[in-house]
Amino acid sequence: MPVQPSRKRPAKAGATPSVVPPAGLRADARHNRERILEAAREAYAAHGIDVPVTTIARRAGVGVATLYRRFPTRTALITEAFSEQLDSCVSALDDALLDPDPWRGLCTLIEKVCAMQATDRGFTAAFLSRFPDAVDFEDRRTHAEEGIARLVRRAQDSGQLRADFAPSDITLLLVANCGVAGASPEVAAAASRRLTGYLLQSFRAGSAAPLPPPAPLELNRIYQPPPGP
Amino acid sequence: MPVQPSRKRPAKAGATPSVVPPAGLRADARHNRERILEAAREAYAAHGIDVPVTTIARRAGVGVATLYRRFPTRTALITEAFSEQLDSCVSALDDALLDPDPWRGLCTLIEKVCAMQATDRGFTAAFLSRFPDAVDFEDRRTHAEEGIARLVRRAQDSGQLRADFAPSDITLLLVANCGVAGASPEVAAAASRRLTGYLLQSFRAGSAAPLPPPAPLELNRIYQPPPGP
Repeated sequence: MPVQPSRKRPAKAGATPSVVPPAGLRADARHNRERILEAAREAYAAHGIDVPVTTIARRAGVGVATLYRRFPTRTALITEAFSEQLDSCVSALDDALLDPDPWRGLCTLIEKVCAMQATDRGFTAAFLSRFPDAVDFEDRRTHAEEGIARLVRRAQDSGQLRADFAPSDITLLLVANCGVAGASPEVAAAASRRLTGYLLQSFRAGSAAPLPPPAPLELNRIYQPPPGP
Repeated sequence: MPVQPSRKRPAKAGATPSVVPPAGLRADARHNRERILEAAREAYAAHGIDVPVTTIARRAGVGVATLYRRFPTRTALITEAFSEQLDSCVSALDDALLDPDPWRGLCTLIEKVCAMQATDRGFTAAFLSRFPDAVDFEDRRTHAEEGIARLVRRAQDSGQLRADFAPSDITLLLVANCGVAGASPEVAAAASRRLTGYLLQSFRAGSAAPLPPPAPLELNRIYQPPPGP
């Protein structure tokens, strides 16, 4: 069943009901909410999504009780903190699907998402982790998977993307790009551009040399935070 | 000044003197030492090198005092735990330099090291971290850097490696390959083979499309463990 690309975000069908929408909040509550989200984004970007909620509350200058009143679960906080970036990714994918040149669409998407990912440690973990109660994340991930599969097919049908390219190679690229995110933001950005440049060249049809088989990587399965010692 | 490849390991000029050589130990002390090293290797492979020394002592079934008697510093323990793998890497590099076909030498080296790295979280961190008092690590890293630079030059001179390939691209590849080490060992190994396959194809001379500039990655600078929250 083909999914139509759309430039409009779909309604957040599964938004966690516990996240109180800002419109219904008093000014000071809205202010606290924004401070918490900002502190969460900064902490996740620098340290990944395993930062304790208490640390985020302290950085936001609010009590833990206040944080939990706004975001009753850790998942609710993570989902909301990365909502904007996920929207950007979904937009970039929809744009790629609308590009009349499927290869250019694919390259542009990969470059955008990799650049975003390279400078934010938390983003990939948030996107690739499986949050059992984050229905909204799941929706967007499924949307992403279907869109990527179509984009890959289109680029292969047009003869620009090599025929042995597997949709899981997109995940492979994202995971490899994750590896460069450990450096300083400037180095990470440069390293990500270079890595993406190399990989796109080898994805292009014409590199006919045989490859090892695709890895069994699914977008929602690859990220496994290291278990505690 | 060219460095001659040698199949013999150089003497450990800077071995940390605090690491008591097994030969001078009584049987039970030697036994404890081996159990500690085994526990350390397992813990580092699964969780990276930030595992506390107390955890390793518990896993080895020895007291913390015993551990510190054998390995007075954390660095001494890490250096010793990864000594064998580092030797394998240096051997692989020496073999690559002796290969009459520089391109085949480079490919074999990359495949070997990436396979080793993909299934051991701790190894790359240990190799790429800078341990101020691990002189022996420094020696081997310097040896590695010089050897890699020669290998790259040889493969470029023979016309098989693209001319705009930078030695820092080897580090880029290792760092990207690190990213796949988060999955289960089987998935990580498959993903690493596929990633390496793609990258080697784009490293090969003939892929003449221009690339973004090399990233300022040095073998000894790239790994930055995430700062604590």
